[in-house]
Order: sequence, then C-alpha cells, then structure tokens
Amino acid sequence: MPNNAVGLSRRGLFQQAGVAVTVASTAAQANEADIPPWTLEQGQPVTDVPYGTPSGFEKSVMRRTRETPLFPTAASMLTPLQDLDGIITPNGLHYIRNHAGTPTIDPDRHRLLVHGLVDRPLSFGMDDLMRFPSVSRIHFLECSGNSGQYKTGQYKADATVQHTHGLLSCAEWTGVRLSDVLAEAGLKPGAAWILAEGADAAALTRSIPVAKALDDAILAYSQNGERLRPEQGYPLRLFLPGFEGNANVKWLRRLKVGDQPFQTRWETSKYTSLMPDGVARQFNFTMEVKSVITRPSPGRGLRHPGFCEVTGLAWSGHGRIMRVEVSTDGGGSWQDAALDGPILPKCLTRFRLPWSWTGGPASFQSRATDETGEVQPTRERLLASRGPNYYYHYNAIQTWAMAPGGEVKLAV
Amino acid sequence: MPNNAVGLSRRGLFQQAGVAVTVASTAAQANEADIPPWTLEQGQPVTDVPYGTPSGFEKSVMRRTRETPLFPTAASMLTPLQDLDGIITPNGLHYIRNHAGTPTIDPDRHRLLVHGLVDRPLSFGMDDLMRFPSVSRIHFLECSGNSGQYKTGQYKADATVQHTHGLLSCAEWTGVRLSDVLAEAGLKPGAAWILAEGADAAALTRSIPVAKALDDAILAYSQNGERLRPEQGYPLRLFLPGFEGNANVKWLRRLKVGDQPFQTRWETSKYTSLMPDGVARQFNFTMEVKSVITRPSPGRGLRHPGFCEVTGLAWSGHGRIMRVEVSTDGGGSWQDAALDGPILPKCLTRFRLPWSWTGGPASFQSRATDETGEVQPTRERLLASRGPNYYYHYNAIQTWAMAPGGEVKLAV
Repeated sequence: MPNNAVGLSRRGLFQQAGVAVTVASTAAQANEADIPPWTLEQGQPVTDVPYGTPSGFEKSVMRRTRETPLFPTAASMLTPLQDLDGIITPNGLHYIRNHAGTPTIDPDRHRLLVHGLVDRPLSFGMDDLMRFPSVSRIHFLECSGNSGQYKTGQYKADATVQHTHGLLSCAEWTGVRLSDVLAEAGLKPGAAWILAEGADAAALTRSIPVAKALDDAILAYSQNGERLRPEQGYPLRLFLPGFEGNANVKWLRRLKVGDQPFQTRWETSKYTSLMPDGVARQFNFTMEVKSVITRPSPGRGLRHPGFCEVTGLAWSGHGRIMRVEVSTDGGGSWQDAALDGPILPKCLTRFRLPWSWTGGPASFQSRATDETGEVQPTRERLLASRGPNYYYHYNAIQTWAMAPGGEVKLAV
Repeated sequence: MPNNAVGLSRRGLFQQAGVAVTVASTAAQANEADIPPWTLEQGQPVTDVPYGTPSGFEKSVMRRTRETPLFPTAASMLTPLQDLDGIITPNGLHYIRNHAGTPTIDPDRHRLLVHGLVDRPLSFGMDDLMRFPSVSRIHFLECSGNSGQYKTGQYKADATVQHTHGLLSCAEWTGVRLSDVLAEAGLKPGAAWILAEGADAAALTRSIPVAKALDDAILAYSQNGERLRPEQGYPLRLFLPGFEGNANVKWLRRLKVGDQPFQTRWETSKYTSLMPDGVARQFNFTMEVKSVITRPSPGRGLRHPGFCEVTGLAWSGHGRIMRVEVSTDGGGSWQDAALDGPILPKCLTRFRLPWSWTGGPASFQSRATDETGEVQPTRERLLASRGPNYYYHYNAIQTWAMAPGGEVKLAV
C-alpha cells in the first residue's frame, strides 16, 4: 500500500517515516569545528555581479526544446517545472514559443498604432505608454499546445514534466490597461474585435474580443519587476489573463479595431480545434482548469523510503483554484492537498500533500477544481468529449508511475 | 500650484493633461504599412537562450555600489528601484551586502549542523532538508543600513532612489520551516536564543530569538522559483520575515541553541544603535514601516507637463501596509494612494497616485501606515527621538524636489 500519507505532527516527522536514522547517523560525524574549505578564503567580490546569474552548480536548470527543431526560429523552449519551487518563474526560464525568432527591437523606435473603428487613430511611443496609469498582476501564461503531445502519444519514455507541461510559466506583469488606451482612441459603434499584430518577422496576428480588451487586458512592458525579456515581446506585449499564449501577441505594434474577427491564418489554419463532426472550433481562448505534480515526477524520484512532500501546480484561465486533490494510488483514493496562499485569479497555485513512501510502487495524480466548479477531466473523459482530431487545450489529469526502486516515469 | 491631481475618467486622461496633442500629432505619421526593419528578417533562434538575459537596451538597469568600496568583498550592491515595476525584484538585481565576498559552495558538500540545547544534535545535507515539508512566501528584505547615509548627509547631489533606498528587494522565498527542523532536534528546557553562522569567510554570526524561529522563520533554498543565487546564500540561508537583512544569515552552516544571546562581534561592535544616553540598543531586529516614491525620482523626472503616475513602494516588518499617503507639495497636503493587491504581510506593497504636472515645481513625499497603526515619521521626528548617534533602521519620509524643468533631485 503506497498510500500512507502521514499527519504532520510537530515532532517525529522523520521518525515515523524511517528517515531519522539517515539524518541522525550523519550528526555524529559533524561538529562546529568542521570548517568547510570555502570559509577559509575570501569569496567573489561583490562588485563582480551588476546583474547576477545562477550558481554554476545549477547549470542543468534550463529551458529545453521537446525535440531538435527543424527551424530554430520557429520553435519552443520549455520551463523546467521539476526544478522550480513556489509560483514565480524566473524571467530567464520563462517558456518561449516563437514563429520567426526573437527580434531585436530598439524601444526608442518602437511604436504602437491604434486604428480602425476608433474616433482618433493614435500612435504611441514607449514613453507615451509609460505615462498612462499602470497595473501589476501575477498571472500564469500557458501555450495552447502545452501537453498536446501527451494526447497523441508522441512523448519519449524519459519525458519529464518539463517536456509534458513546460509550456507554462507565471510572472508579475506590469503595464497599461488596454481599456485606458482604447478610451483615449474612442471606440466607434460596432467595435467588437481587435486585431493585434506583432513586429516579429512572422507578423503574428490574432483577433481579440473587445469585451476581453475592456475587461482585464494589459499592454505589458515589464515582467517580474524588470522590462520584458526579448523572447517575451520586448518592449511591449499584449497580456490577456487566462487566454492561450499565442493570443498574448508579443512585440506588439498594431491594434486595429473592427466589427468582426479578422480571420488571420493563425486562427484559420492554426490554433483551431477540429471537433468530432469535422467543424473547426475557432477562438477557443480560455485555458481550462489543469494541474500537474512537479515532484515526485520523472527524473525527480526518491532515493530512499520515508517522508516525501507531493507538490505541484494548479491553474485555470477562468479564475481562482478552489481545490486540488491528490491520489498516490492511480485514482483509487483522493486526498485534499493544501493550497499555498495567496490564491490569485488566473495564476498558478502551489499545492502540497505530506506523504510517506514505504518503498512500494505508487501512481501519482492530481485533480484541480476552479472557482466556476469546473473539474479537471480524466484523459478518457477528455478524449471522449473532444474526439480524435482535437489537439490544443489538453488539460487531462496526468499520471506519474513510481517503481519500487523510487524511479518515476510518465504513465499513459 | 503643482498639486493638481486629476480624477481618472475613462475618457480624456490625456486631453485633460495636455498630452493628447503630443500623442495625436504622431498618429498622422504612422500607419500599418510602416513596417519596422526588425520585421523584415528572422530573429534570434529560440534555442540560443536556455537561460535568458535582459535586452541589450536595458544595460543601465543594474546593481550599483554607493561608492567604490575599499574592500570589494566587504561591500554592498543596490537594487535599481527607479527602473523596476510591481513588487518582485528579479534575482539578478536583488541587493547584496557581503562581508567577505560570495563563497562558491558545492551543495552536495554543504551541511547544516543543529546543536546546543537540543535533545539530538543533527546534521543535514541539502537532500535531507529538501524532504521536509516546504513553504513559499513573498517577503521583502531590507538591510538595516538602508537609507542610513541620508541621515548623516553623505549622499551626493546626484543620488538616485537606488543609492538612498536600494538595499531593499522582494522575492518569493521557498524553504523549510525552521520550527519543523527544531522539532526534529527537540529543544531542551531553557532554549531561548539560536546562534546562526554563515559559511562565508566572515563566518557571520547572529543570535536569533527562539520565538522568531518558532514563528515564521524559514530555512530558504529558493528565491523566485529557482535555487538561491550565490550572493543570496546558495545553497541555504536563514530567512526571517521582517527582520533586518544581516540577521537572515546566508550560506547557513550552523544553528546552535542556547539560553541567552551569544554576543557575537556582529551584535556588539556592529549592528547596534547608540541611544542619546550612550546606551547601545542591541537586537533591534524588526524593520519599521517605511515607503519611498520610485517615480518621479532623481534621474526619473518628466520631459513635458501632463498626466503622470506617482508610484512607489511601502513595507513594514510588523505586518501589512494599511495606507500610503502622497504629497506633491512637500507635506502641505496629502492624498491617499491606491494600493496594489494582494497586500501581503512583511512584503512590498506598490502604491500609485494619478497626478497631473502643470509644469511648476513640486515636492514629493510618501507616508506609510502599517496594520499596527505605526506611521512613518518625518526626518525631524525620527532624529529627535533617536539622537545624533543612531544610524541603522532609518525610515523617515523621503522628499524628492522637482524643478520647473521636470528634473528631480534629492531634497534634504
């Protein structure tokens, strides 16, 4: 029976779990006179790092591709979720999905044009935009294709959570309310959709409903305090909380207001979902409720029995996470995980369940529920409802299988 | 009268402020056919940046020293608050205060010894600690000497908020509750203080009250999702929410429990405060309520009249920020600023006040109140209550003076 979750008493966490022996046996070997070698010499000068980087011992914590891309400018790089804690993704590890590489844009020459069904067409430099009132919010961003390969069974046997769920990141975004900018231009009667165009060589264009633009859309220029990273749209991107990644147009140079969607190639030949009846579902923007266990996970197994925290991330484009249940026996039984506060809307929420591994096999699953009452589906239910041609917005419950040796692998 | 704060209507923000002309005049020159040069060629390959860095156009956003340090390993580097948005400090820009440089520590060889008045002395490797239940919290960290030079009048005329307040940063910290680790070791009767020692060449040591250790102290191994940066104590630091920076011992190698403070040189010859009667105040841990306007600020003035957001940061080691008032006329009149949520305890809070600059002189101040009711003092009140020898924990209201040309300078 692997499902031996323990209550966390203030004493005896490790005694219960058999880890105390390991810890205590090393205690005898250590004492305060064991001065480590790095204490015996001056360290690196403080002035050496005007902008810091991670320790050299953390070199394996990096973005990775799922496979070697045919065109390195039309590719994605995934966030190493198995190595991260909390909810914030450091900017250097935010996932990337580009269609024509990362342009090098001079912010002093970048402009945003607002035109179409508006009273006054306007063009803004970055300085103009930065004089608007600003707003900062912590939100997740997820690529619509995240976990898509899982559905089609294309993952390699050694896939990690980075490969299966790493097109997901979370940051504090700062910028201008799009509603404020549209108020300056003045929406004409009939204004219903807005074309957003990027300044990259793909000139990626998406149609955004005016209702979303007037709700919580942000013209973002900063992430986690500093200016956007080049891969994230420097100097300006559209940020649409809860919407699929590609709609959050990067290197934003133009917003054209119209009375209907613009039917760009990105929303006809791409980013649509074929339903069982052959009809393509368009403008399926909101990312549905989803969760994944980040540890234990493939490559992050256990070396010896004892206490182990089962932890992961949950999120929903529809609002706040209400509940996350965890199973360690493949869905046979479920326990409520603790949720780290503050629980923010359209934001990652870290969950944790104390558990004790007795050394046997285990099968880990997490199941999230959002504040609208939507429950993350099983793989079977999701595939049954959507049919064989559906690819994007895969949000099914994920299973990790742990072998008696403590190794964890992707299970289908 | 510079104090012309405007109400923010949904329309006419810039019309009121006279900026509309500037914005609209450029609109005629721009249209959707003006393709910028970077759209005409493929960008940088996605695979080039396994760990990303800021845009080359942001090179001036970096940590700086206040002056050239006599010993580059015993120095500080300050966070460029004037360039940052929101509340999160990116890890590359977190402030640094080291006494013997940054040691290069192999995490596989690093150990934490817990001994003294405990039932069982224990020694932990990083792997042992990472099996404990974990916790993630967003908290500020401030050096006890932050803004200290302001009191003594040592700032240069061109000092920015980075120089005056930049020994302040904020991150999401993840680690193990110190109370859980102490429960494993078992506190003996009489346990009242804990010596924390760093593994740097300074072997920095501070005495921490057991009450704080059992309250919200964290043995932190991650900041903003990834492992601690070397300058922040990699692989392990003590994190004491709300306490002065130096007590949050970095490169933590030892915790010794005792029945009284250990009276290390860091708490006798340093980090004490001389009161007017000549008595040195020791163990003055909690950082008091404080705030500062980050824009407009020195070097971040205005180029032309019109709308301008007055924004800054407020914080208190005693809990949540309740209120921030802003004056644009040197304290003659005050207005409540809006506070960005979520307002978290012992965390930076971003405040914002919409304002319109008519082109005349202005004098900016902010005044924070925390949930205990404590109000940030004026410089006069602070100096009067503490006397001439007090240096640390300077938390007085800061004044920035704006000249009619829009240039902003430090005012005393």
